[in-house]
Amino acid sequence: MSEARLIALDWGSTRLRAFLLGASGEVLATRQSDDGAATLKGADVYAAALNALVGDWRAEQPQLKLLACGMVGSQYGWKEAPYVRCPGDAAALAAQALAIDASLSFIPGLVDDAAQPDVMRGEETQIVGALALQPALAEDAVLVLPGTHSKWARVRGGKVTGFATHMTGELFALLRQHSVLNRLMPADGSSPASPEAFLKGVDAAQEAGGLGHQLFAVRTLGLFKQLAADQLPDYLSGLLIGHEITSELQDASRRVALIGDPALCARYAQALQHLGQPAPLLLDNTAPAGLWALAQTMKLI
Amino acid sequence: MSEARLIALDWGSTRLRAFLLGASGEVLATRQSDDGAATLKGADVYAAALNALVGDWRAEQPQLKLLACGMVGSQYGWKEAPYVRCPGDAAALAAQALAIDASLSFIPGLVDDAAQPDVMRGEETQIVGALALQPALAEDAVLVLPGTHSKWARVRGGKVTGFATHMTGELFALLRQHSVLNRLMPADGSSPASPEAFLKGVDAAQEAGGLGHQLFAVRTLGLFKQLAADQLPDYLSGLLIGHEITSELQDASRRVALIGDPALCARYAQALQHLGQPAPLLLDNTAPAGLWALAQTMKLI
Repeated sequence: MSEARLIALDWGSTRLRAFLLGASGEVLATRQSDDGAATLKGADVYAAALNALVGDWRAEQPQLKLLACGMVGSQYGWKEAPYVRCPGDAAALAAQALAIDASLSFIPGLVDDAAQPDVMRGEETQIVGALALQPALAEDAVLVLPGTHSKWARVRGGKVTGFATHMTGELFALLRQHSVLNRLMPADGSSPASPEAFLKGVDAAQEAGGLGHQLFAVRTLGLFKQLAADQLPDYLSGLLIGHEITSELQDASRRVALIGDPALCARYAQALQHLGQPAPLLLDNTAPAGLWALAQTMKLI
Repeated sequence: MSEARLIALDWGSTRLRAFLLGASGEVLATRQSDDGAATLKGADVYAAALNALVGDWRAEQPQLKLLACGMVGSQYGWKEAPYVRCPGDAAALAAQALAIDASLSFIPGLVDDAAQPDVMRGEETQIVGALALQPALAEDAVLVLPGTHSKWARVRGGKVTGFATHMTGELFALLRQHSVLNRLMPADGSSPASPEAFLKGVDAAQEAGGLGHQLFAVRTLGLFKQLAADQLPDYLSGLLIGHEITSELQDASRRVALIGDPALCARYAQALQHLGQPAPLLLDNTAPAGLWALAQTMKLI
């Protein structure tokens, strides 16, 4: 424990993840709890959740600073760290970090208000981490963070110049669980993966007709036995991810990096290559690296 | 009661509606129950539901025929009346009606399998009714039946040549009730209508970026107070209906008729005219007229 330098907190809507970072930013220990920002209310409750997870780390090294990113800093979280506007970089995020007390600070989110406003909280830190780990991306790249609300960020000259959110993961979950499309599907989680059905969905997304129409084929392909019941979830996934990628590809002659859950990133990589794109760079969760880089910029360490 | 000639049944997933029709097809009486096809299982249960609603009509005039359309004739209903393929018309539907017993028959649905299969059950009968009531539509028109699963049917020379389903109403309900988008909205049903927010959503649907991205603006426009909380449901409705119409408009130099719930049809008419289309023809539920026309073709009356 003596070599710890920072407690990095990735505090999202559904989970709190803590990383104890060493002298060169390496992860010494990891912990997590279900105390996500969506389930907590009131500063005392947040403080108690933090103490429950890392109270012993803090007791052992009271001088350690804590730096958090994610929904904990939203207007519905512990305390709001107002958004930084695009174009934004690590320096701007660090400069507008919100100090909660002498040892704990929150990284703000980013807003792109060039057209209708779009927002991220947590992903800005993962982007900083990706650029720290892969400096070649800083010049000109598209960074994609797939998930419930996927983010497609354009990076140029070290700054996030703009980004777009796609509700792909949430639409998948809603349609999978609550819509007429689930009736012909096996129960959640019981399907073996069908890359064939997934790519068939990606291809269907390239056709005319619109997403609201194409979704209905998940039902009819099952009804007419053109896909097996356990292929339908992958077809639905391909359709939604295919739409997301197709909406963004106009912009993607640049280098593409995928950041996040490896299985989900592999799915996006498969779709991108199926659509003729080069193999994207794959990065796992870069939030610890981002918090480390921001802590350095903030001179916390 | 002596003048009754037919019991017409519009038997969908959620409701059973019965119409007692007179000598010229006029509606003499209407009844409905919640015994939709989605809630019933087994022939006895269907027969009992039918008897509960119109048993007295049948007892008074045992010679009356009954003709039903809708999900009652699906493979998950009472008994399947196999789909008629496009192009299809009243004669084809009548020829392939399924006799359940000496007095009760089911109208089949339609399938368009030119590309990925698309299906309707119940709407084919409403289309027959619309063409009976408005013969000028038979030559060349687009008939739109908005709803949970909206149908856009192309009619030429009296036949349905093809159609497309859009899951617009279901997506609205899912997103309104279960998604992150509902968090900033007032509880269901408490919003005054905002035609301004609706048309703003219709306009947003014309922009690039894709539906999965544009949906997220329902959240951010609320977050940044660019729309009031009670305007968000109408913005979401405009976005979804705008996407549906835009996907189909490539095809719509033809005459457009809207069939169904007057409030919902008025919303579609408003969006169509906002997008530069001429005022569409508006028709209320045309299922009784369709069942009457089909009963004539079948020589039941």
